[in-house]
Amino acid sequence: MAGKATKLFSAWFCPFAQRSWIALLEKGVDFELVEIDPYNKTPEFLAVNPRGLVPTLVNNKKSVYESLVLNEYIDEVWPQQPKLMPSDPYDRAQARIWIDFISKKIIPQFYLILQSQEKDQQEDAKGRFLDGLRTLTSAMSSEGPYFFGKDFGLVDIALIPFALRFDIIAHYRDFSLPSDGSFDRLKVWKDAWKSRPSVTATVAPQDKMVAIYKRYADNSAKSEVAEAIRKGTALP
Amino acid sequence: MAGKATKLFSAWFCPFAQRSWIALLEKGVDFELVEIDPYNKTPEFLAVNPRGLVPTLVNNKKSVYESLVLNEYIDEVWPQQPKLMPSDPYDRAQARIWIDFISKKIIPQFYLILQSQEKDQQEDAKGRFLDGLRTLTSAMSSEGPYFFGKDFGLVDIALIPFALRFDIIAHYRDFSLPSDGSFDRLKVWKDAWKSRPSVTATVAPQDKMVAIYKRYADNSAKSEVAEAIRKGTALP
Repeated sequence: MAGKATKLFSAWFCPFAQRSWIALLEKGVDFELVEIDPYNKTPEFLAVNPRGLVPTLVNNKKSVYESLVLNEYIDEVWPQQPKLMPSDPYDRAQARIWIDFISKKIIPQFYLILQSQEKDQQEDAKGRFLDGLRTLTSAMSSEGPYFFGKDFGLVDIALIPFALRFDIIAHYRDFSLPSDGSFDRLKVWKDAWKSRPSVTATVAPQDKMVAIYKRYADNSAKSEVAEAIRKGTALP
Repeated sequence: MAGKATKLFSAWFCPFAQRSWIALLEKGVDFELVEIDPYNKTPEFLAVNPRGLVPTLVNNKKSVYESLVLNEYIDEVWPQQPKLMPSDPYDRAQARIWIDFISKKIIPQFYLILQSQEKDQQEDAKGRFLDGLRTLTSAMSSEGPYFFGKDFGLVDIALIPFALRFDIIAHYRDFSLPSDGSFDRLKVWKDAWKSRPSVTATVAPQDKMVAIYKRYADNSAKSEVAEAIRKGTALP
């Protein structure tokens, strides 16, 4: 396989891949972005990750995948600034607890809002999505703007691709953050990263993004995430 | 709160709490074990973890919970030998990928075998449980005896409490590991840790353990894990 020693296999619309793309840009890593069609996986891609999931990072011929595991790997194998995880073990445990919370309590609800075809199920999922966001927001450092305060890091990155997709659930499901004050801190957080170069470089045009999520909104998506939501099992 | 500066809030039958108990014993930490009844939580316990989940570790007045997060914390905050995570970032990523695999692909099936009341659902869960164990086994170091070879660590600890409970699904659901050779390496792994002091010190009498799991076998358990399995959502 020619090219750079570090390659990120990604799909432009995938929020999980976007997490690792942002992390690599934050660390200033010299890497090659390899665009994959997850619905039509090439033998080259399956050779580096038999599970066929994006993101997959190949670094010095070794593959790492699972976006959250991969992001910790990126922070550890390129130890330069900025550090994306806190240095204190207690703070690092807090980061992992909240990243886990985002995975289990927020993201499945995002997909349920989209994939549910019945209005009451959509509203139910919206309620739980907002509950999760409210709990996360209340755990954010009061000084701000990021989750831990002035330092941008992996808790922020775990949620950003989904916060960027609030517009998609607004489009298909009339979603909006309540303006009752309970999300003011979340809005400060969103404003803080929306013009960060690592984020803006990874954002696809909104109309293209809305269009590709139609398959989630009509529940015809064939991805492993979509299947897991339909079956009610843990996300891959 | 008097007593030692490090307290593990645990419940004797809880496999998640057992993970952190084993990790603390491996590291030789001086701690106090506080037995909790998760079905009747004390105000003292809810004060240290409002979510009320075991295991919870209080260390120098700070609480850490979620067994897998907690185990990484234990390894980091007490950096003495034995190191329970590999030092190389790639190997550490592999450890996290397989710990995540155990959480998502193996443990939910363990509970589904027990909680399912229909025979075909039990057999279906057994099949997927064995598939997960087979995949994990094939990822184990060929030299053995532990997951990564000679070094015992957090991947082993993530699975041990459930491997200790194979007898429970044998009792209630006639489960056994097939003797077709595909689990020989898993048996080597089980034999390697079964007399480790950190493990034997945490094992409850088998008859008491079988008895308390009756509430899972008749699907009347009220724990958050049992509820999540019934609802088909991610484990807490």
